[in-house]
Amino acid sequence: MLPLVDHHCHGVLRSDPDDAAFEAFLTESDAPAAPGTSFFDTQLGFAVRRWCPPLLGLDAHCPPERYLARRRELGAQEANRLLLSASGITTFLVDTGLPGDLTSPAELAEASGAAAREIVRLELLAERVAEEVRDPDKFLAALADAIAAAARTAAGFKSVAGYRYGLDLCPEPPGPAELRAATAGWLAAGAGRITSPVLLRHLLWSAAGTGLPLQLHTGFGDPDLRLHRCDPLLLTDFIKAVRPTGCRVILLHGYPYHRGAAYLAQVYPHVYADVGLSLTHTGARAEAVLAEFLELAPFGKLLFSTDAYGLAELYVVGARLYREALDRLLNGWTGSGAWSAADAERVAALVSAGNAERVYGA
Amino acid sequence: MLPLVDHHCHGVLRSDPDDAAFEAFLTESDAPAAPGTSFFDTQLGFAVRRWCPPLLGLDAHCPPERYLARRRELGAQEANRLLLSASGITTFLVDTGLPGDLTSPAELAEASGAAAREIVRLELLAERVAEEVRDPDKFLAALADAIAAAARTAAGFKSVAGYRYGLDLCPEPPGPAELRAATAGWLAAGAGRITSPVLLRHLLWSAAGTGLPLQLHTGFGDPDLRLHRCDPLLLTDFIKAVRPTGCRVILLHGYPYHRGAAYLAQVYPHVYADVGLSLTHTGARAEAVLAEFLELAPFGKLLFSTDAYGLAELYVVGARLYREALDRLLNGWTGSGAWSAADAERVAALVSAGNAERVYGA
Amino acid sequence: MLPLVDHHCHGVLRSDPDDAAFEAFLTESDAPAAPGTSFFDTQLGFAVRRWCPPLLGLDAHCPPERYLARRRELGAQEANRLLLSASGITTFLVDTGLPGDLTSPAELAEASGAAAREIVRLELLAERVAEEVRDPDKFLAALADAIAAAARTAAGFKSVAGYRYGLDLCPEPPGPAELRAATAGWLAAGAGRITSPVLLRHLLWSAAGTGLPLQLHTGFGDPDLRLHRCDPLLLTDFIKAVRPTGCRVILLHGYPYHRGAAYLAQVYPHVYADVGLSLTHTGARAEAVLAEFLELAPFGKLLFSTDAYGLAELYVVGARLYREALDRLLNGWTGSGAWSAADAERVAALVSAGNAERVYGA
Repeated sequence: MLPLVDHHCHGVLRSDPDDAAFEAFLTESDAPAAPGTSFFDTQLGFAVRRWCPPLLGLDAHCPPERYLARRRELGAQEANRLLLSASGITTFLVDTGLPGDLTSPAELAEASGAAAREIVRLELLAERVAEEVRDPDKFLAALADAIAAAARTAAGFKSVAGYRYGLDLCPEPPGPAELRAATAGWLAAGAGRITSPVLLRHLLWSAAGTGLPLQLHTGFGDPDLRLHRCDPLLLTDFIKAVRPTGCRVILLHGYPYHRGAAYLAQVYPHVYADVGLSLTHTGARAEAVLAEFLELAPFGKLLFSTDAYGLAELYVVGARLYREALDRLLNGWTGSGAWSAADAERVAALVSAGNAERVYGA
Repeated sequence: MLPLVDHHCHGVLRSDPDDAAFEAFLTESDAPAAPGTSFFDTQLGFAVRRWCPPLLGLDAHCPPERYLARRRELGAQEANRLLLSASGITTFLVDTGLPGDLTSPAELAEASGAAAREIVRLELLAERVAEEVRDPDKFLAALADAIAAAARTAAGFKSVAGYRYGLDLCPEPPGPAELRAATAGWLAAGAGRITSPVLLRHLLWSAAGTGLPLQLHTGFGDPDLRLHRCDPLLLTDFIKAVRPTGCRVILLHGYPYHRGAAYLAQVYPHVYADVGLSLTHTGARAEAVLAEFLELAPFGKLLFSTDAYGLAELYVVGARLYREALDRLLNGWTGSGAWSAADAERVAALVSAGNAERVYGA
Repeated sequence: MLPLVDHHCHGVLRSDPDDAAFEAFLTESDAPAAPGTSFFDTQLGFAVRRWCPPLLGLDAHCPPERYLARRRELGAQEANRLLLSASGITTFLVDTGLPGDLTSPAELAEASGAAAREIVRLELLAERVAEEVRDPDKFLAALADAIAAAARTAAGFKSVAGYRYGLDLCPEPPGPAELRAATAGWLAAGAGRITSPVLLRHLLWSAAGTGLPLQLHTGFGDPDLRLHRCDPLLLTDFIKAVRPTGCRVILLHGYPYHRGAAYLAQVYPHVYADVGLSLTHTGARAEAVLAEFLELAPFGKLLFSTDAYGLAELYVVGARLYREALDRLLNGWTGSGAWSAADAERVAALVSAGNAERVYGA
């Protein structure tokens, strides 16, 4: 089994979710399922029921209630161990910017027998700095220090500017006066969730200056974002502007605009595309979606991830769906003579791990 | 054969169309086919020639002229009866807002041996009220009465704001002064086709207040619309704004933005997606298009329809393409182990009828 | 083997490219591949290695170095002859507007044993006129003469307004004052690369007046363009405005917005869609991409091309990928009964050559 580097994921819940909480992890919605419907009745829900019950000693596709009962019986720690160790992921790059009682990268590594490094979420880093420092000039200095400090150990940075504003940001770094004004305004208003495009741009450009890879959320996610403002192509001018810094830009997810992400990965040497959430949530359709990435993305520019969060099941499903989708595609292409078997093997190793190792030095 | 609830269709021509009129129903174009080409040479044209000739005693794929001759020989009434009764549709929800000598819901029900209810088109309703009442305040009161009256019997409302303006409408209901001014201006100018975004928004919010499901045209249609302004994602802010009213929003068609429609159906509990026109017009590709809907749409949120209009053939084709596409997809997924057979059967029943029954109480 | 009319391509290099230059033709990027990656590791690179080595006496999928060595051994002229004559293309319509030491249409015809006609690129034509005439009024008159002269022999015109500005141009022709001012400004500034939307619109409308087909670049291309501003749907208002002139508009490429291009080809009698670059670059996925064109495009409105440029390999690959994709699609559809075999044969002949012959009188 090919080793997998999961270059974008989150921690796992330390304790048992109740049934409603479990179901909530199967969707990007922020609300319970509509009356008469269930989020188990989704491609992701069916994928969980396909791959996970056998790992806990049950039949594939057993009813959700039975699976949840068995999971509770085992307890969070044992369920996490059984599931994570079956994922076949050898390295996790963990975005630690999500809330909840989640495992740290070190705990995730321990539970799964894998390596783990941290991806630092820029917006959260800045919001935390502001908890301590409320003077604008001192804040900006402290933020620069915090980013520099993070860069010494992190594998990369991540931005959720797409959620907070949209990707249709002005591409240039903000000027000093503009930045100071936006910073002062934000701090004076209580330094809550950063939504100012000026501050978001400052974070992007600060990260770009460190030389570490910069992950950007693009494409679908929870209803906090407006999907049409998360088309990765909206980043084109930022990508052009940041090119001289040498910053490598990793476009996460991208669905349903993933063909555009793959295009950007082809035409800009510093841009990479990620499959992430786009496979996990599309389940039985993961093969079709992965195939669309593999139209324009150079094979040295596409990266596997799960974007798993909260449930250990999501690592299992993200990894299995990816493996199976890739196998089926490559078997089809070698079977028809379109690709050679040696090339297929080489490309599988690149997308599964090699590209991430090259980009992150992971 | 699974019963089908066709939650969005129109009436059938009462009399025989001539050959040119028949061909015109095979396309969304408003003009004859370009010199040297024919609208029979489309996926829809080929699907009609596949499924309909055998129902009239001819060979599948017989030449269009032969089919049209046989149809004329039988007469509109008999052809309609033969075709409609073979569609397997058990309930029609009929948008009565299209022009032409079309059957009423009751006539459609009788011709097909099925049940039928009405979907009231908001723009037409308002335009009809204006034929009687030209004073702005009296018009707005009469419109409110007409919407309330319609809500007592209709299964739902439908808006073509996408055609008339685009879906990039201001999401909020218009204020009273704004509404009165737009109404007065429209009435003074002769109360023709409503294109004022203020009036269109008022209609949407009026319908939302009734508690009935609200169908919105999204995606492709005739050249009266600009397709890129009919991306359902442009409705995101309206969807957020209308959420507290409890209004259920049904995104019709959606193609080629149907993945976005499916996304909205996942993240907003009050949003549903429809396959409609997206399958009828793509013929041999209906399976691929349906599969894209089934990536992010929860299975309790997707609804079958034909959007059939004028020709009884379009009900047959819409239903057959859908059934065959669904069968092939589900057989593929159960065959590979991705889905269980029991789940596949359950999902088929939901999309074919169960979801519509729940949403419309049909 | 079906004859192919390649209605949009460019010339072939007269001399041997070195290895880096060869690789650069495999991508739309303007830069070398990122460190550790290669543009041979793309669908296009793999397609070249599949189809071309056997034509030069090597095994399919042999390593790039071996192929390049063999190519050098044969020399550019012999390699071009072997490759081009194997493409099965019987007519080339050659856009002569690209730089480089490329064969003329006559040379391409001779090297391949096919016919060739010219497609005149509007922007280059205007830039060349400005090399001689720097007075605004005289320039506009000379440009009109040059367009009229070109129209007497060319098969059609081509615009790269999508690259130079974007397709979100004002749809109407510029007024005389606006045009004169933009022309004077451009000439005074040295008459470089035309990027003025006013001048670009003037070129489009001037070409429309000749009655020749007008090709427009849409969709992906090199990073000189912003992809989201090359969505063919952005041309909708121009298409409506130009309709009364009778100008036939050919939407080139279109990917990833090719479903929108196919839609426009359905609803507007004067609009056609092209597969071009969308198949060449997607390699093993060409079948899936072609299928998406064949959802809404009437079969009398879709045209084959390679958009090949520089390397004779790109004609081979463009033609083979297209033929194989079409064969597989049609075999699938006739196999399932969705299409008749006679229809499949007829549609294949239309898209491969018949539609281009009708449109260009080629």
